[in-house]
Amino acid sequence: MNVTIIGLGLIGGSLAKDLKRTGFATSITGVDKSKENAEEALRLGFIDKISNLEEGIKNAELVIIAIPVDKVLEVLPKVLGLIPEGTTVTEMGSTKQVIVESIKNHPKRKNFIAAHPMSGTENSGPSAAIEELFKGKITIICDQEDSGAQHLALIEKMFHLIGMDIAYMTSDEQDLSTAFVSHLPHAAAYALANAVQAKEDRNIIFDLASGGFRSTVRLAKSSSTMWHPIFQQNRDYVVESLDVYIKHLKEFRDSMKNNDFDKLMKLIKKANKIRGILDGENHLLIKNKETNVKLYTK
Amino acid sequence: MNVTIIGLGLIGGSLAKDLKRTGFATSITGVDKSKENAEEALRLGFIDKISNLEEGIKNAELVIIAIPVDKVLEVLPKVLGLIPEGTTVTEMGSTKQVIVESIKNHPKRKNFIAAHPMSGTENSGPSAAIEELFKGKITIICDQEDSGAQHLALIEKMFHLIGMDIAYMTSDEQDLSTAFVSHLPHAAAYALANAVQAKEDRNIIFDLASGGFRSTVRLAKSSSTMWHPIFQQNRDYVVESLDVYIKHLKEFRDSMKNNDFDKLMKLIKKANKIRGILDGENHLLIKNKETNVKLYTK
Repeated sequence: MNVTIIGLGLIGGSLAKDLKRTGFATSITGVDKSKENAEEALRLGFIDKISNLEEGIKNAELVIIAIPVDKVLEVLPKVLGLIPEGTTVTEMGSTKQVIVESIKNHPKRKNFIAAHPMSGTENSGPSAAIEELFKGKITIICDQEDSGAQHLALIEKMFHLIGMDIAYMTSDEQDLSTAFVSHLPHAAAYALANAVQAKEDRNIIFDLASGGFRSTVRLAKSSSTMWHPIFQQNRDYVVESLDVYIKHLKEFRDSMKNNDFDKLMKLIKKANKIRGILDGENHLLIKNKETNVKLYTK
Repeated sequence: MNVTIIGLGLIGGSLAKDLKRTGFATSITGVDKSKENAEEALRLGFIDKISNLEEGIKNAELVIIAIPVDKVLEVLPKVLGLIPEGTTVTEMGSTKQVIVESIKNHPKRKNFIAAHPMSGTENSGPSAAIEELFKGKITIICDQEDSGAQHLALIEKMFHLIGMDIAYMTSDEQDLSTAFVSHLPHAAAYALANAVQAKEDRNIIFDLASGGFRSTVRLAKSSSTMWHPIFQQNRDYVVESLDVYIKHLKEFRDSMKNNDFDKLMKLIKKANKIRGILDGENHLLIKNKETNVKLYTK
């Protein structure tokens, strides 16, 4: 299958590697507004040729868009306008409501699958692309009833081939869930990095930075080009999640301030439960059957 | 050298492994109030024999205390009271002011070195002990002028042998630095775990938990037995650090709330600088020469 990938960074590049390795793509055309990135991707061998957008999607059976979500708003309608009748288009960004809204009346809406593979690292660019980035992770497919059955089937097949499970939900549900599980941790890490940097009189602290600090603040390294528009497009839910987080931080701080160390112990023990939750083996898949969130396991 | 380790969990156990491997300890006696833990340590082979506290320190040339910091307040004076004249005692906890205060007038104060090796994982117990846990990390030694020169030299040698650099500071400076670089990230992770668990109507989010969420919340798995007394003993500086963190979180949230996305971009880019700071090679060691914090590199 001829695949064209627009955006050859961490996500587009990692996907290219997996689609080649699994044989899903026989030929991959790479499109990137940065000539440097495109040439690096070609040199790294995960694309077969470089093209501009117009040429690049002409013969594509599948177009994958993996660019910052603000750029998706420009590129996606353009791609839908240019593709042949039967071509499938998908998009990998972390927000979905604004994006699906922007093409909801497009004549080729059915060619499009709104997807969000929940995987990444704090690095960016073609050199950040790694094999099996997506293996064992979950991808979200949004508003699947708005996509054509064949297009949906192709994208499902692709995600399964690279080792992902699929969760189906509305783009509204995806934006809320992702706000808490991904956007909030990023905001928390950015603010933590700024809080600690603000103690400039004690810059010794960076020499002392141990594994705990490093892992908690890791996401603060994440690219502003990617994350700024995510916060912009998912503003309401991220603000909501930050409100909830700040409330819990204040509760933690106040228990100490008030010398209420029994309360503090309760808060720590409650937080400790995250271990069982995170280490559980897809234990919530069944629980969620009663909600309108459908989960699909291989 | 005969070494006795009191507390055979993550820190005591990992240290035992390294002290055996490097030949620093010829014999290690293990003391733990949990019979199970002591027996597990013996089975895992990182101690040579089990003893009670009184018997265990009788013939020790070095006693290492690696127990929760509230328990240190009971055990440390007792140990200092029982050891032979020339025995060195050190203690590995994450807080120092309350601890050194508790023995400041002890006749054997000079036998004691207040140390804090900045390394750990979110796991606990003898089975969590790993080799080279401390390699490449920094240990803090506090108020070194209150310790005898021979005792200090022995502890410095021990930390160098297991691959650590040493930062010297007062126990007050240690508690402030550690509040920001270790206690705050733990508090932030505990609160994040609670915030996300509070969204029970959306428990689907745990299935979606990707690497980013997992690393940010990792520390929330940390043992309450260890962390509750740390927050208690370092209450004032941790509250201060939480105030600073909440202020930065609000700034982040408000930039979004007010649609001030230029401000948001500035905050993200400022946070991004943490990459260079954390990836730098001990670049602050020289900068700190003008402060009263003395850093000592191998």
